Amino acid sequence: MTRFCVRCGSATALSIPEGDNRERHVCSACGAIDYQNPRLVVGTVVEHDDTVILCRRAIEPRRGFWTLPAGFLELGEPASDGAARETFEETGVRAHIEAPLVHFDLPAIGQIYLLFRATPVDLSLLGHPETLSESLEVRAFGWETLPWDELAFDAVRLTLELRKKDRQDGVDRLHYGALRRLPEVSTIGPHSHRLEDHLALRVGR
Amino acid sequence: MTRFCVRCGSATALSIPEGDNRERHVCSACGAIDYQNPRLVVGTVVEHDDTVILCRRAIEPRRGFWTLPAGFLELGEPASDGAARETFEETGVRAHIEAPLVHFDLPAIGQIYLLFRATPVDLSLLGHPETLSESLEVRAFGWETLPWDELAFDAVRLTLELRKKDRQDGVDRLHYGALRRLPEVSTIGPHSHRLEDHLALRVGR
Repeated sequence: MTRFCVRCGSATALSIPEGDNRERHVCSACGAIDYQNPRLVVGTVVEHDDTVILCRRAIEPRRGFWTLPAGFLELGEPASDGAARETFEETGVRAHIEAPLVHFDLPAIGQIYLLFRATPVDLSLLGHPETLSESLEVRAFGWETLPWDELAFDAVRLTLELRKKDRQDGVDRLHYGALRRLPEVSTIGPHSHRLEDHLALRVGR
Repeated sequence: MTRFCVRCGSATALSIPEGDNRERHVCSACGAIDYQNPRLVVGTVVEHDDTVILCRRAIEPRRGFWTLPAGFLELGEPASDGAARETFEETGVRAHIEAPLVHFDLPAIGQIYLLFRATPVDLSLLGHPETLSESLEVRAFGWETLPWDELAFDAVRLTLELRKKDRQDGVDRLHYGALRRLPEVSTIGPHSHRLEDHLALRVGR
Protein backbone atom coordinates (compact mmCIF):
# COMPACT_ATOMS: atom_id res chain seq x y z
CA MET A 1 0.00 0.00 0.00
CA THR A 2 1.35 3.39 -0.91
CA ARG A 3 1.74 5.60 2.13
CA PHE A 4 2.19 9.34 2.32
CA CYS A 5 4.33 11.64 4.43
CA VAL A 6 2.52 13.32 7.36
CA ARG A 7 4.88 16.29 7.07
CA CYS A 8 4.66 17.14 3.35
CA GLY A 9 2.09 14.78 1.77
CA SER A 10 4.51 13.20 -0.73
CA ALA A 11 4.71 9.43 -1.27
CA THR A 12 6.90 7.42 1.09
CA ALA A 13 8.94 4.33 0.26
CA LEU A 14 10.38 1.59 2.46
CA SER A 15 14.12 1.95 2.98
CA ILE A 16 16.71 1.62 5.74
CA PRO A 17 17.73 5.10 6.95
CA GLU A 18 21.44 5.79 7.52
CA GLY A 19 22.51 4.62 10.96
CA ASP A 20 19.42 2.42 11.31
CA ASN A 21 19.05 -1.31 10.75
CA ARG A 22 15.36 -1.64 9.80
CA GLU A 23 13.15 -0.65 6.94
CA ARG A 24 11.08 2.48 7.65
CA HIS A 25 8.56 4.47 5.69
CA VAL A 26 10.80 7.31 4.44
CA CYS A 27 9.49 10.34 2.51
CA SER A 28 10.84 10.49 -1.03
CA ALA A 29 10.62 14.31 -1.01
CA CYS A 30 11.50 15.67 2.45
CA GLY A 31 13.18 12.60 3.99
CA ALA A 32 10.93 12.48 7.08
CA ILE A 33 10.82 9.03 8.69
CA ASP A 34 7.46 7.64 9.85
CA TYR A 35 8.38 5.43 12.82
CA GLN A 36 5.79 2.82 13.79
CA ASN A 37 5.79 1.61 17.39
CA PRO A 38 3.67 -0.70 19.54
CA ARG A 39 0.67 0.85 21.28
CA LEU A 40 -0.27 0.43 24.90
CA VAL A 41 -3.72 -0.83 25.90
CA VAL A 42 -4.41 0.01 29.55
CA GLY A 43 -7.22 -1.26 31.74
CA THR A 44 -8.26 -2.71 35.06
CA VAL A 45 -9.37 -5.71 37.04
CA VAL A 46 -11.75 -4.00 39.47
CA GLU A 47 -12.31 -6.24 42.48
CA HIS A 48 -15.27 -5.63 44.75
CA ASP A 49 -15.95 -8.07 47.60
CA ASP A 50 -15.63 -11.40 45.80
CA THR A 51 -16.55 -10.10 42.37
CA VAL A 52 -14.79 -8.67 39.34
CA ILE A 53 -16.32 -6.17 36.95
CA LEU A 54 -16.66 -7.14 33.28
CA CYS A 55 -18.37 -5.44 30.36
CA ARG A 56 -20.01 -6.94 27.28
CA ARG A 57 -18.62 -5.43 24.10
CA ALA A 58 -20.96 -3.32 21.98
CA ILE A 59 -18.40 -3.03 19.17
CA GLU A 60 -16.40 -5.29 16.90
CA PRO A 61 -14.20 -7.21 17.18
CA ARG A 62 -15.88 -9.75 19.45
CA ARG A 63 -19.12 -7.86 19.89
CA GLY A 64 -21.32 -9.49 22.55
CA PHE A 65 -18.40 -11.10 24.39
CA TRP A 66 -17.24 -10.16 27.90
CA THR A 67 -14.08 -8.20 28.47
CA LEU A 68 -12.17 -6.17 31.04
CA PRO A 69 -12.45 -2.39 30.67
CA ALA A 70 -9.42 -1.28 28.65
CA GLY A 71 -8.40 0.93 25.75
CA PHE A 72 -5.55 2.78 24.10
CA LEU A 73 -3.42 5.03 26.27
CA GLU A 74 -3.59 8.65 25.12
CA LEU A 75 -0.73 11.12 24.73
CA GLY A 76 -0.11 13.13 27.89
CA GLU A 77 -1.69 10.52 30.13
CA PRO A 78 0.02 8.31 32.74
CA ALA A 79 -0.88 4.64 32.28
CA SER A 80 -2.73 4.43 35.61
CA ASP A 81 -4.82 7.50 34.71
CA GLY A 82 -5.65 5.96 31.34
CA ALA A 83 -6.71 2.71 33.00
CA ALA A 84 -9.02 4.59 35.38
CA ARG A 85 -10.44 6.68 32.52
CA GLU A 86 -11.22 3.64 30.37
CA THR A 87 -12.80 1.94 33.37
CA PHE A 88 -15.12 4.88 33.96
CA GLU A 89 -16.00 5.27 30.28
CA GLU A 90 -16.83 1.58 29.79
CA THR A 91 -18.33 0.58 33.16
CA GLY A 92 -19.38 3.78 34.96
CA VAL A 93 -17.17 2.79 37.93
CA ARG A 94 -14.71 5.24 39.48
CA ALA A 95 -11.74 3.08 40.44
CA HIS A 96 -8.65 3.45 42.60
CA ILE A 97 -5.59 1.92 40.95
CA GLU A 98 -3.78 -0.45 43.31
CA ALA A 99 -0.86 -1.96 41.38
CA PRO A 100 0.19 -3.32 38.00
CA LEU A 101 -1.23 -6.85 37.56
CA VAL A 102 -0.25 -8.03 34.07
CA HIS A 103 2.00 -6.76 31.31
CA PHE A 104 1.46 -8.86 28.20
CA ASP A 105 3.38 -8.16 25.01
CA LEU A 106 1.31 -9.01 21.93
CA PRO A 107 3.98 -8.60 19.25
CA ALA A 108 1.80 -10.16 16.53
CA ILE A 109 -0.58 -7.21 16.68
CA GLY A 110 1.83 -4.49 17.88
CA GLN A 111 0.10 -4.02 21.22
CA ILE A 112 0.98 -4.21 24.89
CA TYR A 113 -1.69 -4.96 27.48
CA LEU A 114 -1.03 -3.31 30.81
CA LEU A 115 -3.77 -4.08 33.30
CA PHE A 116 -3.92 -2.85 36.90
CA ARG A 117 -5.58 -4.27 39.95
CA ALA A 118 -8.11 -1.73 41.20
CA THR A 119 -10.84 -1.21 43.79
CA PRO A 120 -14.05 0.75 43.28
CA VAL A 121 -14.31 4.25 44.75
CA ASP A 122 -17.82 4.99 43.47
CA LEU A 123 -20.18 2.28 42.25
CA SER A 124 -23.27 4.47 41.93
CA LEU A 125 -22.99 4.53 38.13
CA LEU A 126 -22.14 0.81 37.75
CA GLY A 127 -23.63 -0.35 34.50
CA HIS A 128 -24.42 3.18 33.42
CA PRO A 129 -21.13 4.16 31.80
CA GLU A 130 -20.48 7.62 30.40
CA THR A 131 -20.27 6.29 26.86
CA LEU A 132 -22.71 3.43 26.57
CA SER A 133 -21.60 3.08 22.96
CA GLU A 134 -18.82 0.64 23.86
CA SER A 135 -20.63 -1.63 26.35
CA LEU A 136 -23.90 -3.54 25.96
CA GLU A 137 -23.96 -4.51 29.62
CA VAL A 138 -21.77 -4.26 32.74
CA ARG A 139 -21.85 -6.82 35.52
CA ALA A 140 -19.94 -7.82 38.66
CA PHE A 141 -19.20 -11.56 38.34
CA GLY A 142 -18.30 -13.85 41.21
CA TRP A 143 -14.87 -15.47 40.73
CA GLU A 144 -16.57 -18.89 40.69
CA THR A 145 -19.09 -17.94 38.01
CA LEU A 146 -16.96 -16.13 35.43
CA PRO A 147 -18.22 -16.45 31.83
CA TRP A 148 -15.18 -18.42 30.60
CA ASP A 149 -16.84 -19.47 27.34
CA GLU A 150 -17.90 -15.94 26.45
CA LEU A 151 -14.68 -13.97 26.98
CA ALA A 152 -13.63 -11.66 24.16
CA PHE A 153 -9.85 -12.13 24.09
CA ASP A 154 -7.22 -14.58 25.24
CA ALA A 155 -5.43 -11.81 27.13
CA VAL A 156 -8.61 -11.30 29.16
CA ARG A 157 -9.01 -15.01 29.87
CA LEU A 158 -5.37 -15.35 30.89
CA THR A 159 -5.52 -12.28 33.14
CA LEU A 160 -8.56 -13.67 34.94
CA GLU A 161 -6.98 -17.15 35.26
CA LEU A 162 -3.79 -15.68 36.73
CA ARG A 163 -5.56 -13.34 39.14
CA LYS A 164 -7.94 -16.09 40.25
CA LYS A 165 -4.97 -18.29 41.09
CA ASP A 166 -3.22 -15.43 42.94
CA ARG A 167 -6.33 -14.96 45.06
CA GLN A 168 -6.46 -18.69 45.79
CA ASP A 169 -2.77 -18.57 46.75
CA GLY A 170 -3.37 -15.49 48.91
CA VAL A 171 -0.68 -13.42 47.15
CA ASP A 172 -0.58 -10.42 44.85
CA ARG A 173 1.63 -10.93 41.81
CA LEU A 174 2.71 -9.03 38.74
CA HIS A 175 2.72 -11.21 35.62
CA TYR A 176 4.98 -10.29 32.74
CA GLY A 177 5.15 -12.20 29.48
CA ALA A 178 4.71 -12.33 25.73
CA LEU A 179 1.61 -13.85 24.14
CA ARG A 180 2.39 -15.44 20.82
CA ARG A 181 -0.10 -16.75 18.35
CA LEU A 182 0.25 -20.46 17.73
CA PRO A 183 -0.68 -21.19 14.11
CA GLU A 184 -1.38 -24.89 14.76
CA VAL A 185 -4.33 -24.25 17.06
CA SER A 186 -7.55 -22.31 16.77
CA THR A 187 -7.20 -18.56 17.17
CA ILE A 188 -10.73 -18.26 18.55
CA GLY A 189 -11.07 -20.96 21.17
CA PRO A 190 -9.44 -21.09 24.59
CA HIS A 191 -5.69 -21.63 24.90
CA SER A 192 -5.04 -20.45 21.36
CA HIS A 193 -2.14 -18.38 22.65
CA ARG A 194 0.86 -19.54 24.56
CA LEU A 195 2.44 -17.41 27.24
CA GLU A 196 6.20 -17.44 26.71
CA ASP A 197 8.86 -16.44 29.20
CA HIS A 198 6.23 -15.92 31.83
CA LEU A 199 7.59 -14.18 34.91
CA ALA A 200 5.25 -14.40 37.89
CA LEU A 201 6.51 -11.92 40.44
CA ARG A 202 5.12 -11.88 43.93
CA VAL A 203 4.10 -8.37 44.84
CA GLY A 204 3.85 -6.95 48.34
CA ARG A 205 4.54 -3.50 49.70
CA MET B 1 1.67 22.90 11.37
CA THR B 2 -0.25 21.39 8.50
CA ARG B 3 -0.17 17.61 8.54
CA PHE B 4 -1.03 15.18 5.79
CA CYS B 5 -2.87 11.87 5.64
CA VAL B 6 -0.63 8.77 5.53
CA ARG B 7 -3.33 6.94 3.53
CA CYS B 8 -4.09 9.43 0.75
CA GLY B 9 -1.70 12.39 1.14
CA SER B 10 -4.43 15.03 1.55
CA ALA B 11 -4.30 17.66 4.30
CA THR B 12 -5.63 16.73 7.73
CA ALA B 13 -7.41 18.99 10.20
CA LEU B 14 -7.95 18.71 13.94
CA SER B 15 -11.47 17.63 14.82
CA ILE B 16 -13.29 15.33 17.23
CA PRO B 17 -14.41 12.17 15.38
CA GLU B 18 -17.93 10.88 16.01
CA GLY B 19 -18.04 8.71 19.12
CA ASP B 20 -14.73 10.10 20.34
CA ASN B 21 -14.04 12.80 22.92
CA ARG B 22 -10.65 14.18 21.79
CA GLU B 23 -9.30 16.15 18.88
CA ARG B 24 -7.52 13.96 16.32
CA HIS B 25 -5.80 14.64 13.03
CA VAL B 26 -8.59 13.68 10.60
CA CYS B 27 -8.14 13.56 6.81
CA SER B 28 -10.29 16.11 5.02
CA ALA B 29 -10.53 13.84 1.94
CA CYS B 30 -10.73 10.18 3.01
CA GLY B 31 -11.62 10.60 6.70
CA ALA B 32 -8.71 8.48 8.00
CA ILE B 33 -7.81 9.28 11.62
CA ASP B 34 -4.15 9.57 12.59
CA TYR B 35 -4.07 8.42 16.22
CA GLN B 36 -1.04 9.50 18.23
CA ASN B 37 -0.05 7.35 21.19
CA PRO B 38 2.77 7.26 23.74
CA ARG B 39 5.88 5.31 22.78
CA LEU B 40 7.68 2.78 24.93
CA VAL B 41 11.39 3.14 25.68
CA VAL B 42 12.81 -0.18 26.87
CA GLY B 43 16.18 -0.86 28.44
CA THR B 44 18.13 -2.53 31.21
CA VAL B 45 20.02 -2.19 34.44
CA VAL B 46 22.68 -4.86 33.87
CA GLU B 47 24.19 -5.87 37.21
CA HIS B 48 27.51 -7.71 37.29
CA ASP B 49 29.12 -8.44 40.66
CA ASP B 50 28.79 -5.09 42.40
CA THR B 51 28.73 -3.02 39.23
CA VAL B 52 26.15 -1.64 36.84
CA ILE B 53 26.79 -1.02 33.14
CA LEU B 54 26.37 2.51 31.80
CA CYS B 55 27.14 4.06 28.43
CA ARG B 56 28.17 7.58 27.55
CA ARG B 57 25.92 9.08 24.88
CA ALA B 58 27.42 9.79 21.47
CA ILE B 59 24.27 11.55 20.28
CA GLU B 60 22.08 14.46 21.28
CA PRO B 61 20.24 15.12 23.48
CA ARG B 62 22.69 15.01 26.39
CA ARG B 63 25.71 13.92 24.36
CA GLY B 64 28.64 13.04 26.63
CA PHE B 65 26.43 12.16 29.63
CA TRP B 66 26.03 8.67 31.09
CA THR B 67 22.86 6.68 30.58
CA LEU B 68 21.39 3.20 30.84
CA PRO B 69 21.13 1.29 27.54
CA ALA B 70 17.59 1.89 26.23
CA GLY B 71 15.67 2.77 23.09
CA PHE B 72 12.31 2.66 21.37
CA LEU B 73 10.48 -0.65 21.27
CA GLU B 74 9.96 -1.86 17.71
CA LEU B 75 6.82 -3.34 16.18
CA GLY B 76 6.72 -7.12 16.48
CA GLU B 77 9.07 -7.19 19.44
CA PRO B 78 8.28 -8.16 23.05
CA ALA B 79 9.49 -5.51 25.52
CA SER B 80 12.07 -7.82 27.09
CA ASP B 81 13.53 -8.68 23.66
CA GLY B 82 13.71 -4.97 22.82
CA ALA B 83 15.50 -4.26 26.09
CA ALA B 84 18.07 -6.99 25.37
CA ARG B 85 18.53 -5.76 21.79
CA GLU B 86 19.15 -2.17 22.84
CA THR B 87 21.57 -3.37 25.50
CA PHE B 88 23.60 -5.30 22.94
CA GLU B 89 23.54 -2.49 20.39
CA GLU B 90 24.67 0.17 22.86
CA THR B 91 27.02 -1.74 25.17
CA GLY B 92 28.08 -4.95 23.40
CA VAL B 93 26.75 -6.99 26.34
CA ARG B 94 24.45 -9.97 25.82
CA ALA B 95 22.06 -9.82 28.76
CA HIS B 96 19.55 -12.13 30.39
CA ILE B 97 16.39 -10.28 31.40
CA GLU B 98 15.49 -10.98 35.03
CA ALA B 99 12.39 -8.90 35.82
CA PRO B 100 10.74 -5.52 35.27
CA LEU B 101 12.43 -2.93 37.53
CA VAL B 102 10.81 0.43 36.76
CA HIS B 103 7.84 1.63 34.75
CA PHE B 104 7.89 5.43 34.56
CA ASP B 105 5.21 7.33 32.68
CA LEU B 106 6.60 10.53 31.18
CA PRO B 107 3.36 12.11 29.96
CA ALA B 108 4.99 15.47 29.21
CA ILE B 109 6.98 13.89 26.37
CA GLY B 110 4.61 11.05 25.42
CA GLN B 111 6.99 8.31 26.50
CA ILE B 112 7.03 5.38 28.90
CA TYR B 113 10.30 4.08 30.32
CA LEU B 114 10.24 0.37 31.01
CA LEU B 115 13.56 -0.84 32.37
CA PHE B 116 14.39 -4.42 33.33
CA ARG B 117 16.88 -5.81 35.79
CA ALA B 118 19.30 -8.01 33.87
CA THR B 119 22.47 -10.06 34.25
CA PRO B 120 25.22 -10.43 31.66
CA VAL B 121 25.41 -13.63 29.63
CA ASP B 122 28.41 -12.64 27.51
CA LEU B 123 30.73 -9.78 28.45
CA SER B 124 33.38 -10.45 25.80
CA LEU B 125 32.21 -7.49 23.70
CA LEU B 126 31.76 -5.09 26.66
CA GLY B 127 32.56 -1.62 25.42
CA HIS B 128 32.65 -2.76 21.82
CA PRO B 129 29.00 -2.44 20.91
CA GLU B 130 27.59 -3.44 17.55
CA THR B 131 26.74 0.14 16.67
CA LEU B 132 29.36 2.37 18.21
CA SER B 133 27.48 5.31 16.76
CA GLU B 134 25.32 5.69 19.86
CA SER B 135 27.92 5.27 22.63
CA LEU B 136 31.23 7.09 23.17
CA GLU B 137 32.23 4.75 25.97
CA VAL B 138 30.83 1.86 28.01
CA ARG B 139 31.85 1.16 31.58
CA ALA B 140 30.86 -0.99 34.57
CA PHE B 141 30.51 1.39 37.55
CA GLY B 142 30.59 0.33 41.19
CA TRP B 143 27.37 1.27 43.01
CA GLU B 144 29.40 3.52 45.33
CA THR B 145 31.10 5.41 42.51
CA LEU B 146 28.22 6.13 40.12
CA PRO B 147 28.64 9.35 38.08
CA TRP B 148 25.65 11.12 39.67
CA ASP B 149 26.63 14.54 38.31
CA GLU B 150 27.01 13.31 34.75
CA LEU B 151 23.80 11.34 34.22
CA ALA B 152 21.86 12.09 31.04
CA PHE B 153 18.25 11.97 32.27
CA ASP B 154 16.26 12.19 35.47
CA ALA B 155 14.63 8.83 34.74
CA VAL B 156 18.12 7.29 34.72
CA ARG B 157 19.11 8.96 37.98
CA LEU B 158 15.87 7.91 39.66
CA THR B 159 16.17 4.32 38.42
CA LEU B 160 19.70 4.07 39.83
CA GLU B 161 18.66 5.66 43.16
CA LEU B 162 15.75 3.25 43.53
CA ARG B 163 17.74 0.17 42.60
CA LYS B 164 20.63 1.18 44.86
CA LYS B 165 18.20 1.45 47.77
CA ASP B 166 16.61 -1.92 46.91
CA ARG B 167 20.05 -3.52 46.99
CA GLN B 168 20.78 -1.90 50.36
CA ASP B 169 17.43 -3.17 51.64
CA GLY B 170 18.14 -6.63 50.25
CA VAL B 171 14.89 -6.76 48.23
CA ASP B 172 13.90 -6.71 44.57
CA ARG B 173 11.13 -4.26 43.81
CA LEU B 174 9.16 -3.05 40.84
CA HIS B 175 8.68 0.73 40.86
CA TYR B 176 5.72 2.22 39.04
CA GLY B 177 5.01 5.93 38.79
CA ALA B 178 4.58 9.07 36.72
CA LEU B 179 7.38 11.59 36.34
CA ARG B 180 6.03 15.09 35.93
CA ARG B 181 8.02 18.14 35.03
CA LEU B 182 7.96 20.81 37.71
CA PRO B 183 8.10 24.22 36.07
CA GLU B 184 9.40 25.95 39.21
CA VAL B 185 12.68 24.06 39.30
CA SER B 186 15.50 23.50 36.86
CA THR B 187 14.83 20.87 34.22
CA ILE B 188 18.54 20.03 34.00
CA GLY B 189 19.74 19.61 37.55
CA PRO B 190 18.95 16.79 39.96
CA HIS B 191 15.44 16.43 41.37
CA SER B 192 13.91 18.48 38.60
CA HIS B 193 11.15 15.90 38.32
CA ARG B 194 8.83 14.69 40.99
CA LEU B 195 7.67 11.09 41.12
CA GLU B 196 3.94 11.09 41.73
CA ASP B 197 1.84 8.20 42.94
CA HIS B 198 4.94 6.09 43.34
CA LEU B 199 4.14 2.45 43.97
CA ALA B 200 7.13 0.47 45.25
CA LEU B 201 6.22 -3.17 44.97
CA ARG B 202 8.35 -5.81 46.56
CA VAL B 203 9.13 -8.48 44.02
CA GLY B 204 10.01 -12.09 44.79
CA ARG B 205 9.24 -15.31 42.97
